[in-house]
Amino acid sequence: MATQAAFLAGFSQLAAQPGRDCAVAVAPARVSVASVGSAKVGVRVGVKAGTAEAAAVAQRGGVRCRASLIEPDGGRLVDLVTPEEGGRRAALRREAAELPHRLRLSRVDKEWVHVLSEGWASPLQGFMREDEFLQTLHFNAIRGQDGRMVNMSVPIVLSVGDAQRRAIQADGATRVALVDERDRPIAVLSDIEIYKHNKEERIARTWGTTAPGLPYVEEAITNAGDWLIGGDLEVIEPIKYNDGLDQYRLSPAQLREEFARRNADAVFAFQLRNPVHNGHALLMTDTRKRLLEMGYKNPVLLLHPLGGFTKADDVPLSWRMKQHEKVLEEGVLNPESTVVAIFPSPMHYAGPTEVQWHAKARINAGANFYIVGRDPAGMSHPTEKRDLYDADHGKKVLSMAPGLERLNILPFKVAAYDTKQKKMDFFDPSRKDDFLFISGTKMRTLAKNRENPQMVLCAGWLESTKCRIL
Amino acid sequence: MATQAAFLAGFSQLAAQPGRDCAVAVAPARVSVASVGSAKVGVRVGVKAGTAEAAAVAQRGGVRCRASLIEPDGGRLVDLVTPEEGGRRAALRREAAELPHRLRLSRVDKEWVHVLSEGWASPLQGFMREDEFLQTLHFNAIRGQDGRMVNMSVPIVLSVGDAQRRAIQADGATRVALVDERDRPIAVLSDIEIYKHNKEERIARTWGTTAPGLPYVEEAITNAGDWLIGGDLEVIEPIKYNDGLDQYRLSPAQLREEFARRNADAVFAFQLRNPVHNGHALLMTDTRKRLLEMGYKNPVLLLHPLGGFTKADDVPLSWRMKQHEKVLEEGVLNPESTVVAIFPSPMHYAGPTEVQWHAKARINAGANFYIVGRDPAGMSHPTEKRDLYDADHGKKVLSMAPGLERLNILPFKVAAYDTKQKKMDFFDPSRKDDFLFISGTKMRTLAKNRENPQMVLCAGWLESTKCRIL
Repeated sequence: MATQAAFLAGFSQLAAQPGRDCAVAVAPARVSVASVGSAKVGVRVGVKAGTAEAAAVAQRGGVRCRASLIEPDGGRLVDLVTPEEGGRRAALRREAAELPHRLRLSRVDKEWVHVLSEGWASPLQGFMREDEFLQTLHFNAIRGQDGRMVNMSVPIVLSVGDAQRRAIQADGATRVALVDERDRPIAVLSDIEIYKHNKEERIARTWGTTAPGLPYVEEAITNAGDWLIGGDLEVIEPIKYNDGLDQYRLSPAQLREEFARRNADAVFAFQLRNPVHNGHALLMTDTRKRLLEMGYKNPVLLLHPLGGFTKADDVPLSWRMKQHEKVLEEGVLNPESTVVAIFPSPMHYAGPTEVQWHAKARINAGANFYIVGRDPAGMSHPTEKRDLYDADHGKKVLSMAPGLERLNILPFKVAAYDTKQKKMDFFDPSRKDDFLFISGTKMRTLAKNRENPQMVLCAGWLESTKCRIL
Repeated sequence: MATQAAFLAGFSQLAAQPGRDCAVAVAPARVSVASVGSAKVGVRVGVKAGTAEAAAVAQRGGVRCRASLIEPDGGRLVDLVTPEEGGRRAALRREAAELPHRLRLSRVDKEWVHVLSEGWASPLQGFMREDEFLQTLHFNAIRGQDGRMVNMSVPIVLSVGDAQRRAIQADGATRVALVDERDRPIAVLSDIEIYKHNKEERIARTWGTTAPGLPYVEEAITNAGDWLIGGDLEVIEPIKYNDGLDQYRLSPAQLREEFARRNADAVFAFQLRNPVHNGHALLMTDTRKRLLEMGYKNPVLLLHPLGGFTKADDVPLSWRMKQHEKVLEEGVLNPESTVVAIFPSPMHYAGPTEVQWHAKARINAGANFYIVGRDPAGMSHPTEKRDLYDADHGKKVLSMAPGLERLNILPFKVAAYDTKQKKMDFFDPSRKDDFLFISGTKMRTLAKNRENPQMVLCAGWLESTKCRIL
């Protein structure tokens, strides 16, 4: 925990220095699809470090920090948290408490309020209105006010039941309060638009199946209201969970400040919802090496576990965060060039559709490289004996997605346990029988069934920590 | 038939004049969404006739015709029919007859070969490879070689069974013959790519439902092979049907020549799969009037019935064409400013997804205005008591679709039978009880149930032809 605490302390110092000018870093042009973990990477990158892209100004909590990190979607990072100055928060809280219509947020709704409030979905200003919803379903992208497409592949919507819908419309209300499970005001949604929630169409177009048993559908759609309510969001105060992990919940603006403070000239993001595997560690270390070989001076890793809703058999966030702390503490990853933070989005398990959201949100946090794995955001088909998505479709769709042209997509070569060398290494097809493949899913199954989880966990997951974790 | 014959004769003369230079017409910038049939049209059109867009060169069968009709997608109209010159057709036919692998085309497959061969799907050069298929499913658009997005919302794919797939791959074949139901060679598919046909995902993402009973799914997907085969298409000779209607099957190049010959400075397309309704006629006449008021000198209507696969209860093509002939003959539509032709595509009934295809194909045929109705390409939900799509989604999705920015979308105000005036007129909500709504579906039901179809058909469909048709 010492290392992690050290960089967080560093971050806190930065946050206390308003007006600081950060060093200028660079963002190169797009690499199409290059393989990380092989000599091929970099072949298609013709732009050297030093070519500055449009500079972005990240602003938050009084800190202003200029850095030429990749520009957020729409050109400006959205921030929907009401400033404290001038009693504005108190005023909004009073208004919310008095508004005649209040919608109670579910756990997943509140996670989306968090996501929207910090600009992960920039340029979205709130829950989607119908135009945005339709563009998301049909095009996985939304046309911004400047006419350019920004990627947006999963609907970020809020549902409302028929009785409440009728009451709101009968009143001609334009503002409604959003409240938590104990009726405490969280936000106000204004300039509202109510439209039909066609659940079947939403599910079919988002997941490519309507089979029963999709975790997000069961959690957040099946029993949701038959209407959707879109509008502009004003959040009363930053969303907190008070679970001991809020320190890791850095907003895109805070992450941008951190990258600038470290003089990062490339930021490569790694999304995960499992404990770090030694194969992951190998990949991340190798990626940094390759980026250095490409001419970057200081590539920084954003190790970015997803912190919102996950399915019941995924490893809980608190365990995963403990494991990530150890990875830094033990030096499996270099804390100098690694930022660990929580991505607050809930998980859709929507494969090629969702991986775009995972990548797009990281652009907003300043990442210009995104590492994509095999079958990202995938799962087993809920009713058939097969994976729901083709394992290659995620990276293919991601590399072609509208609005992600600026992002460098880095699909990784598979790493596996080399039984000859007795360590994780990139898979060598010429001696394939030497390699033992251990997926996150298989790992969970082995651990659950107690088939010598010690051996598996030590060999496959976190060799260097000598099985002390999990 | 006299009028129709006259313009076709004129067209034939044109086709006999190689090297002819056609008059220059103009294409204005995009109208967002304006209402036709109301004074609103034109309000959002800021560009006057006379502003020339990039000129397009249409080339076909030795005829070269320069006109500044809207540019085809990808900049060049695709033509996949092998030229007769130099014995190339004969050579391709011989090769196709000798190729070891031959795929038998279904009726719908052959319609797609027709569509592809004439460039309706420009810039597609053949059946989709996986990259194109995935982009279609996820983005309804494909990135062209120039980096720009062209719209492409329905998969144009060819399936192959597992045994044949294995045989082709075992041989390492790169070219396969496509043959008709009597094994006659139609085309050769080259540089082939075979990939999985995930039917569930294809259906869910195309239709937004996986409910059983979708007509195209039952006709062309359910029993299709579990693999898809993409590649470049070389068609041996123009596709003909020998059903007495081939004269109406004008290719996009032929239509462009016809529009240029008529000095059209605007082309407005009307897609339909039902007999012409007097409400349609009113709308089309009114649209031309509005376009003239907007400053166009010679707007030409492309009355463009869909000629491919339709569901069993739709009116057969031959009946519809007879009815369309009468409409011109009787002067319900002005033959001077109307071109009637058949659009060879099969019908998906995929609502907002399919209407984009209907519009995009007409850009390739030279249309820069597209009239979109209520619930375009819609139908009843196959298993629930409701329409499959929201009636407004078609025009909303169309107006936001990537790759259709150059097209002027014209949603029409509803026309209905005014029982006071005893004629079709645009619906006036202030005296809504005076209007009788007669949809194509209702019309078919009334006719089938013999509830005085004479009255209904005469009043609603084709007043001026005095009930002689149908």
